[in-house]
Amino acid sequence: MRATLLFQAGDVRVEDVADPRIQQPTDAVIRIVTGCVCGSDLWPYKSQPLTDTPRQMGHEFIGVVEETGTEVKSFKPGDLVVVPFTYSDGTCDNCRRGLTTSCAHGGPWGVGGVDGGQGEAARIPFADGTLVKLPVGEDSELLPDLLTLSDVLCTGYHAARTAGVKAGDSVTVIGDGAVGLSAVISAKLLGAERIILMGRHTKRTDLGREFGATDVVAGRGQDGVAAVRELTGGTGTDRVLECVGLKNALVQATGVVRDGGVISRVGAPQYPEVPFGFPEFLRNITLTGGVAPSRAYIEELMPHILNGDIHPGRVFDRTVALDDVAEGYRLMNDREALKVLIRP
Amino acid sequence: MRATLLFQAGDVRVEDVADPRIQQPTDAVIRIVTGCVCGSDLWPYKSQPLTDTPRQMGHEFIGVVEETGTEVKSFKPGDLVVVPFTYSDGTCDNCRRGLTTSCAHGGPWGVGGVDGGQGEAARIPFADGTLVKLPVGEDSELLPDLLTLSDVLCTGYHAARTAGVKAGDSVTVIGDGAVGLSAVISAKLLGAERIILMGRHTKRTDLGREFGATDVVAGRGQDGVAAVRELTGGTGTDRVLECVGLKNALVQATGVVRDGGVISRVGAPQYPEVPFGFPEFLRNITLTGGVAPSRAYIEELMPHILNGDIHPGRVFDRTVALDDVAEGYRLMNDREALKVLIRP
Repeated sequence: MRATLLFQAGDVRVEDVADPRIQQPTDAVIRIVTGCVCGSDLWPYKSQPLTDTPRQMGHEFIGVVEETGTEVKSFKPGDLVVVPFTYSDGTCDNCRRGLTTSCAHGGPWGVGGVDGGQGEAARIPFADGTLVKLPVGEDSELLPDLLTLSDVLCTGYHAARTAGVKAGDSVTVIGDGAVGLSAVISAKLLGAERIILMGRHTKRTDLGREFGATDVVAGRGQDGVAAVRELTGGTGTDRVLECVGLKNALVQATGVVRDGGVISRVGAPQYPEVPFGFPEFLRNITLTGGVAPSRAYIEELMPHILNGDIHPGRVFDRTVALDDVAEGYRLMNDREALKVLIRP
Repeated sequence: MRATLLFQAGDVRVEDVADPRIQQPTDAVIRIVTGCVCGSDLWPYKSQPLTDTPRQMGHEFIGVVEETGTEVKSFKPGDLVVVPFTYSDGTCDNCRRGLTTSCAHGGPWGVGGVDGGQGEAARIPFADGTLVKLPVGEDSELLPDLLTLSDVLCTGYHAARTAGVKAGDSVTVIGDGAVGLSAVISAKLLGAERIILMGRHTKRTDLGREFGATDVVAGRGQDGVAAVRELTGGTGTDRVLECVGLKNALVQATGVVRDGGVISRVGAPQYPEVPFGFPEFLRNITLTGGVAPSRAYIEELMPHILNGDIHPGRVFDRTVALDDVAEGYRLMNDREALKVLIRP
């Protein structure tokens, strides 16, 4: 089959790899219907050294079950399924607690003999634990919305949930990428009254307003902090959803959060240490969040998509064929696209 | 009056200072009945450069009201009161939210023309917001227990509360100082099933066992982490209460907390940055806590002391007269005393 491989920074290609096949009785094999490029794919796309063992890229995808192992009980060939961005057994202590990203037997796509999601097909370990069936056909217009359940919507939702967003809260969302915009959707779903979106790309922040942002702050650093404080009578907001992953964004988060408030970070940290010493201690600021256990949120969020309450698939502003995936990476890396959908 | 002044590291003296007097109609003046030395007093005691304007030390004290300003409504001369370790107006937005340490008009004792608590008397700003009346006489045997409501018990309780300790939880407490031991008491009050106390001073950890610790781990660093993981079937504990304030203790905390767990820090951070990057992100670890808003917890905790449920005053293992306060500092700094009570 054809799959996306990253050989080194900037060098992503679609090449032939081994066809997936059932290896364990708990496996399924799916034909991929749609996938996409993630902001987190851009970190290795920017930095990966040359390698002989290129990683299969992609971890957000929807597919049709083609074959199942003998122990798979919940799926049969023909089922349309959404795949969370990590696989998980669904039975271990962490999975039962909803922390599927810390599954005892789970892991990420594209490494250790596991396929990626930017290809024609994939073997799915622990199919019963990992997959969620979609109650629509593969030609449904909702597919882009449902694809966001793999990662980006759930990641934004994880930020809002771990931050404890509740009715009436004020929330700052840092970052106008697809995760930030998903965090806006999520904060609104949870009842936030005021949602301040910090971002400087007007096209994106305009979409953020449509998703529920009540204010947009284009300034960064001290200027941005001052603007948010002015909007909030000097106090900052109850919650901050940090959807970037850079140290500057986290410093900005401590600047805009109110005393006793919560920062949730869902941008993959590109820093080893956090400036979180005595001043933040005196202000009783909490730092939470982490990698999103998407699997645990899918059933909760899917009805909002099926009912038409939310349209998270609007973050996809470009579509490429699988063979043109390199162009998709370029578009996102050059910020010409917000998020790129892939149709094999 | 006589009061404790810190001139430079290791040089703490009791000298004459101006008698306190009512300055604002919201002030009270109290005669101090008992106070104590705090672990946090030892940081400046170890490091303070020579100064011409020595700080009045002490922030944990009980006293008798001698005089009140014209606007003080809740107290009258003769009332025995406990003083939280910061003063606060009780009416601002943060005070109403229970975050009295972020009071719009509050502050710490001993600076900016405000007296300290290791002396004969003190002016109390915002008496109505700050003080809590004690329903006992100044000769009560419960005074050492009630004195812990100023800071140390409330600080341990803040760790347990912000960590979200609930019935059945497993909890690690890092640090066998008076705050750590108070955190043990607090975790037990909140229903923790397993309380692992990390400390190496047998006399202190023995008291910790009496307070409710189910296990003691003397090892530090990697050895200590391995020991806690072994005790918990490899997972670590649900909550970690970090009662030291050093970076090593925080690293230890990340080692013993389970994935998805919460670390609450109440030791004043002696570090500007926290190692809290990608590994902790992948494990969804939350970092919370901060300086304890003691005032907000006093009414909740006092009944447990009056009923005899808890005996937090057992952390005081030495008593000195006010004139011997320097010896009290030495005893604590040399770890000859766990916590030193002062009787003027």
